[in-house]
Amino acid sequence: MNGAECLLRTLAACGVDTCFMNPGTSEMQFVTALDRVPQVRGILCLFEGVCSGAADGYARMTGRPAATVLHLGPGLANALANFHNARKARSPVVNIVGQHTTRHLRHDAPLTSDIEAIARPVSAYVRTIARVEDIASETVEAVRAARQARGVATLIVPADFSWSEAGERGWPAPNDSAITVDAARVRQAAAILRSGEPAALLLGGRTLLAAGFEPAARIAANTGARVLANRYGARYQRGGGRLAPLRLPYFPEAAQARLAGLKHLILVESAAPVAFFGYPNSPSLLAPADCALHVLASPDENGSAALMELATQCRADSLTIPPPELPLPDWPAPGALTLDAIGRAMSRLLPPDAIVAEEAVSSGELILRHLAAGPPHDHLPVTGGSIGQGLPVAVGAAVACPGRKVIALEADGSGLYTPQALWTMAREHLDITVVILANRRYRILDIEIERTGAGKPGPQADRMLDLASPPIDWVRLAQGFGVAARCASTTDDFAAALRDSMARLGPSLIEAVLS
Amino acid sequence: MNGAECLLRTLAACGVDTCFMNPGTSEMQFVTALDRVPQVRGILCLFEGVCSGAADGYARMTGRPAATVLHLGPGLANALANFHNARKARSPVVNIVGQHTTRHLRHDAPLTSDIEAIARPVSAYVRTIARVEDIASETVEAVRAARQARGVATLIVPADFSWSEAGERGWPAPNDSAITVDAARVRQAAAILRSGEPAALLLGGRTLLAAGFEPAARIAANTGARVLANRYGARYQRGGGRLAPLRLPYFPEAAQARLAGLKHLILVESAAPVAFFGYPNSPSLLAPADCALHVLASPDENGSAALMELATQCRADSLTIPPPELPLPDWPAPGALTLDAIGRAMSRLLPPDAIVAEEAVSSGELILRHLAAGPPHDHLPVTGGSIGQGLPVAVGAAVACPGRKVIALEADGSGLYTPQALWTMAREHLDITVVILANRRYRILDIEIERTGAGKPGPQADRMLDLASPPIDWVRLAQGFGVAARCASTTDDFAAALRDSMARLGPSLIEAVLS
Repeated sequence: MNGAECLLRTLAACGVDTCFMNPGTSEMQFVTALDRVPQVRGILCLFEGVCSGAADGYARMTGRPAATVLHLGPGLANALANFHNARKARSPVVNIVGQHTTRHLRHDAPLTSDIEAIARPVSAYVRTIARVEDIASETVEAVRAARQARGVATLIVPADFSWSEAGERGWPAPNDSAITVDAARVRQAAAILRSGEPAALLLGGRTLLAAGFEPAARIAANTGARVLANRYGARYQRGGGRLAPLRLPYFPEAAQARLAGLKHLILVESAAPVAFFGYPNSPSLLAPADCALHVLASPDENGSAALMELATQCRADSLTIPPPELPLPDWPAPGALTLDAIGRAMSRLLPPDAIVAEEAVSSGELILRHLAAGPPHDHLPVTGGSIGQGLPVAVGAAVACPGRKVIALEADGSGLYTPQALWTMAREHLDITVVILANRRYRILDIEIERTGAGKPGPQADRMLDLASPPIDWVRLAQGFGVAARCASTTDDFAAALRDSMARLGPSLIEAVLS
Repeated sequence: MNGAECLLRTLAACGVDTCFMNPGTSEMQFVTALDRVPQVRGILCLFEGVCSGAADGYARMTGRPAATVLHLGPGLANALANFHNARKARSPVVNIVGQHTTRHLRHDAPLTSDIEAIARPVSAYVRTIARVEDIASETVEAVRAARQARGVATLIVPADFSWSEAGERGWPAPNDSAITVDAARVRQAAAILRSGEPAALLLGGRTLLAAGFEPAARIAANTGARVLANRYGARYQRGGGRLAPLRLPYFPEAAQARLAGLKHLILVESAAPVAFFGYPNSPSLLAPADCALHVLASPDENGSAALMELATQCRADSLTIPPPELPLPDWPAPGALTLDAIGRAMSRLLPPDAIVAEEAVSSGELILRHLAAGPPHDHLPVTGGSIGQGLPVAVGAAVACPGRKVIALEADGSGLYTPQALWTMAREHLDITVVILANRRYRILDIEIERTGAGKPGPQADRMLDLASPPIDWVRLAQGFGVAARCASTTDDFAAALRDSMARLGPSLIEAVLS
């Protein structure tokens, strides 16, 4: 079989069965091989940032890598921003990038670029295949690298290798060795918690799923420790009466307040808490200066197992923690649409096990705080801060989890970096409801401009934050990409639109015009 | 003054007065400084690929750099693809990228990335400012580097330097030293042309402007040499009865036919002709194997001056070349819309000195061949092959040349990589008519899939080339971004829509639905 088919069959054998692609001439063999390898589902995206963001969303929900197939260096370049987010989310992705033929490369044709150099800043692993007979083994290695590093493994495939005879497909690599719990660190954490000094567990990574924070809650009940969540986790399970740790706030002063008084911060699959940006007269590190940081489990380790062990040592094994009593929020009062009203309506209308892909830095909190009292759901937030992740992550989550409703909670500014994701939602009939939070500003920058001491914006500066002239009509944009859409500017309109979207399968968009 | 103001004032002093921007928190000081430095025009783009493509278009039309202001590594990453095209077009650009504060950088905050590494593959020059007092001198150096290398000069500015006191603005660098003509190479070229052996001049760079190819035409008339144009020049002046060299075709066989029989190819600001892609059983180099390549002027040198000198040596100084007799094409016959009809209508309806920004690899030739007989115009084609350049290049050309009508001749596939450019057209009231060539396929790939021997596409493969399910409604997309739009599927519809657009100022879009 040729190299492209060999690669796809090897991916399938390794359990990689979903491929978000935007192929060009150098990747045509992968396209025709799709019909010979039906185990791999090819999903076309109109822009490469949709491919990379979708692979991130897929990995966040499944823990498994999807593949991306991209066209040469510039195609890869368009995918970098969302690969940055995937890297920060620790999402495994097998990133296949076509290259000119080995013979053509030396001639500096128009599309020639240094693909390895473009890939490296976002990749945990970068390889260019050097011999066609290595395609199977190189593919296995790339899958293994993506899984082990939980990152982007980039495999660059010269076009002539795709059409040359490549031999048999490869066999899956053995399972990654399980990482054990570090008993010394568990003992140390237990001693700290027994000391009575103010302490908190800061959860990240997979401990933000129910199986992780459940033992943390028992530890907290038995020791008085606080349980907090790193802000930049990849996936949070919340709602449905489940316990859920409080996420650290976005702005450093609020995060500092949350951490105030602590003498010990025990990190569980989490980095030390840092501010998103540096500001004049504001520290980057958020924990108090006299707070000691301890690592219970690094982001590479199994924090949930370590928490189970720690719970045993804290004699919190058999505790039963009553579910938090969070009354369902009241229905929003009629009137002009607000973020609070959106949150209330969502908490009442979301079906169980919905997935909320959220990219709404300035608007999100006022909505999300109501969802904790709603039905059980997964929340996929901003991880790396590259703008334009929300709609692609929703695509990937919907592909990963058929049968679950996905809500993309998207800012009107951020959504405009990758609006092409809407077309893939329509093409693949994905069950996604996009809620565009239309304040017609880069609202977060209104806040940041003040925080950075940049002074009051004059008329020219104001134009750099303004999305109202001309206003962007998201209903037409969505319809242009084949997605049914409507606009809501009152509470009742929004609730009706959301109810409709929840009641049917397939993509739709609600432009929530905020007053 | 603070660093941001110092930088903008230095840009203005160096003649850089246009700034395509998509700023974030780290660049807020640049935003507020715009009101204090009215010499610099800030133009907001909703996606960074629009900024970089617009800067490319601006440089192609003016020869001068615009600035871009981008937000950290991910913002830069989104701009890379069109910077690749700018690099291949040899367009000078001063690319300002914000960075975290010097103090914040070490903490690996979510948006931290290796900005220099992301910049390098597309930049001729990369610097991170190390001391706030260097902002003025570093800015001068970046402008000088962009001009001298005719490439992207990336200057990375830590956010704290933007808000710190930076002293006075810098002074413009002295003019770049003029590059003289290499007399020995002129003599060698003259000897070749006198030898009577089959020879051609292959023009690139600035020799594709009238002042360059006019002496080439005189040389040809006196020596029998052919005059050809490199396919991947940044800007071609054509029409209005001007002489114009034939561009080499896209597909290698046709380009080889054009070069067949040559014993000498004299390169004038052009690389040796190479195929766009490598294919099975098709060479990368297009000139005959026994054709000698000679350099009259490298892409860094002044090819037009060398051609003037060569014309003197060939005694072609005082020749008068009659303008080519190209009859204006007939009006297209009524009926379903075709590429031929679009070309005919454009050749009759374009106003003088229009600018045609073209990104239509599979559809362009059948249109462009009619324009040679139309009014004088500039043609800005694909240079580097990164998809998504056409609409942004049109934005930059329109900003660069107020008073000239810009036509963006855009494929429906390619246009979907940077549709956000439409909003900047509306926001800035740019005089651009976008013509979307809607065949609802990645049509070029229908050809390439066969050329690469990938076999007949099955149903899965076909879906990777198909843009018809669901169809993309460009009229709604344009309206969504604030641009008036209409659809044309017959010759008469198209001619009427084009006539209307030519008669008024401001942006509009015609979705040309091809049968």
